[in-house]
Amino acid sequence: MGLVIADDLLGRGLQRIQREIDQAFDLKLPVPDDSRASLVEAMRHAAIGGGKRVRPLLLSAVAEMYGVSRPAAVLAGCAIEAIHVYSLIHDDLPCMDDDDLRHGKPTVHKAFDEATAVLAGDSLHALAFEILAGRQVSTDPFIRAELVYALASASGHTGMAGGQMMDMVAEGEAFDLRTVTLLQQLKTGALLGAAVEMGAILGKVPEEGRSHLRAYARDIGLAFQIADDLLDEEGDEMLAGKALRKDAPAGKATFVSLMGVDGARQQAQALSQQAIGHLASHGKEADLLRALAKFIVERDR
Amino acid sequence: MGLVIADDLLGRGLQRIQREIDQAFDLKLPVPDDSRASLVEAMRHAAIGGGKRVRPLLLSAVAEMYGVSRPAAVLAGCAIEAIHVYSLIHDDLPCMDDDDLRHGKPTVHKAFDEATAVLAGDSLHALAFEILAGRQVSTDPFIRAELVYALASASGHTGMAGGQMMDMVAEGEAFDLRTVTLLQQLKTGALLGAAVEMGAILGKVPEEGRSHLRAYARDIGLAFQIADDLLDEEGDEMLAGKALRKDAPAGKATFVSLMGVDGARQQAQALSQQAIGHLASHGKEADLLRALAKFIVERDR
Repeated sequence: MGLVIADDLLGRGLQRIQREIDQAFDLKLPVPDDSRASLVEAMRHAAIGGGKRVRPLLLSAVAEMYGVSRPAAVLAGCAIEAIHVYSLIHDDLPCMDDDDLRHGKPTVHKAFDEATAVLAGDSLHALAFEILAGRQVSTDPFIRAELVYALASASGHTGMAGGQMMDMVAEGEAFDLRTVTLLQQLKTGALLGAAVEMGAILGKVPEEGRSHLRAYARDIGLAFQIADDLLDEEGDEMLAGKALRKDAPAGKATFVSLMGVDGARQQAQALSQQAIGHLASHGKEADLLRALAKFIVERDR
Repeated sequence: MGLVIADDLLGRGLQRIQREIDQAFDLKLPVPDDSRASLVEAMRHAAIGGGKRVRPLLLSAVAEMYGVSRPAAVLAGCAIEAIHVYSLIHDDLPCMDDDDLRHGKPTVHKAFDEATAVLAGDSLHALAFEILAGRQVSTDPFIRAELVYALASASGHTGMAGGQMMDMVAEGEAFDLRTVTLLQQLKTGALLGAAVEMGAILGKVPEEGRSHLRAYARDIGLAFQIADDLLDEEGDEMLAGKALRKDAPAGKATFVSLMGVDGARQQAQALSQQAIGHLASHGKEADLLRALAKFIVERDR
């Protein structure tokens, strides 16, 4: 990726999880020797060798705090990334955002075709739940069922997909800050929240011990999206590996259009600091989460 | 639906499950009072008031043989139907089969728009797993995890979606009977097999006691698809509620093109009889499955 990360702990963590998630997808997606080959090639095109892997990093960082085995955390990370990747494939379709470039590569419908892109997204969607319900993730069926529930409820119409719908309607609508916040909490925040929740489920953290983790997830989720809006306004398309400056021409209300560039940047920083504050009860085992909260608002892609 | 069913047991079973599945979707899909409303309306448009509900009937018929509570079987049936419905929404998209009519109503992308159709399909996909992983289906997390695994593995790239990919490639390819059989086993058979499997999971039927049920499911799955090919060739579009006679112009190899109308009809009947034969160890508790095996090859839609 060539992403320059000031923080060593975070840099190593990102490199490690990127390698592990690529390996996990590679193992889960052998190319069959029949006419399904192009479907699996399309899934691999989208899932392997791209993306920051923020969600798996978040999940595995929380899991590690509670002593979860690395392979289990990586598999669950692969599942949540499969959901993220499927949503990008469908989002990039001509009938949605109509994007040609993703992670510096042609989008799936450009490299293959639209029908293959629809099916590749659907197949990654199913793969996520096949992984989570399988015995490799955990021998404890309660953990498997809870992981599925957390991810399914965060990604459907009451979560991510609902947020995407609001986002589509947003073009040309005069959404206020409260509506944009709800939209972003659903579109991006729900899945980031699920990453933290799934780490806690794997770590068998009791319900009552998860509130500070949820508060952390809520704050970084919003900070992440404000940073995304700032990148859309000010980012470098080469670095981002995708088309930018799409919000303003679409007449879409964003944090930047509502708060201004400076206001949005201050708000993102404040949320990042607030997120770190929620980790006060933890020692250095939470350093990766702290570094991640800083990275999310400082990243250039 | 106005579907005339000769068999009383089957007729009552279909009417009952159709009412129950409609009710379950209605409860699961309240329309929110914000800009997500049209997404949920689109999900309801596709999920409520249409479809024969063959998969939920199959699932609940097996579940009933093993004393499963009706609400649990209906919820699991709602989940598998959500997968079936999402696959129809995506299949009907312009970039896939480009169909305007489904169950006698406009398809989702016609009644709403393409982007909403993509998201409505994705949301029903997630809903299926949210239902199965939730505690309403079963208080036993092992059952919940097994249900998710059965449905996810049957619907992804190694199952239904893989079959749909083969089906797309099939246009203009000179597939032989072996390849068409594999295609159909994936595209239709995998999900019908999952319906039977999920009924057995709910009924806590041990692995070694499921082989005759799996054999039954395999036979009716193939019989179902041969009957579909016959309907495409000979059926009434008004009754079917969708466009027919699409296979031959597309140059697609089907059971009918490979075996002829008479050969295909004989094969479907033979498979239906063979399916019934697998139920020989059961008494009248399996009568609904027997009636279903007959119905599948005799239906007019």
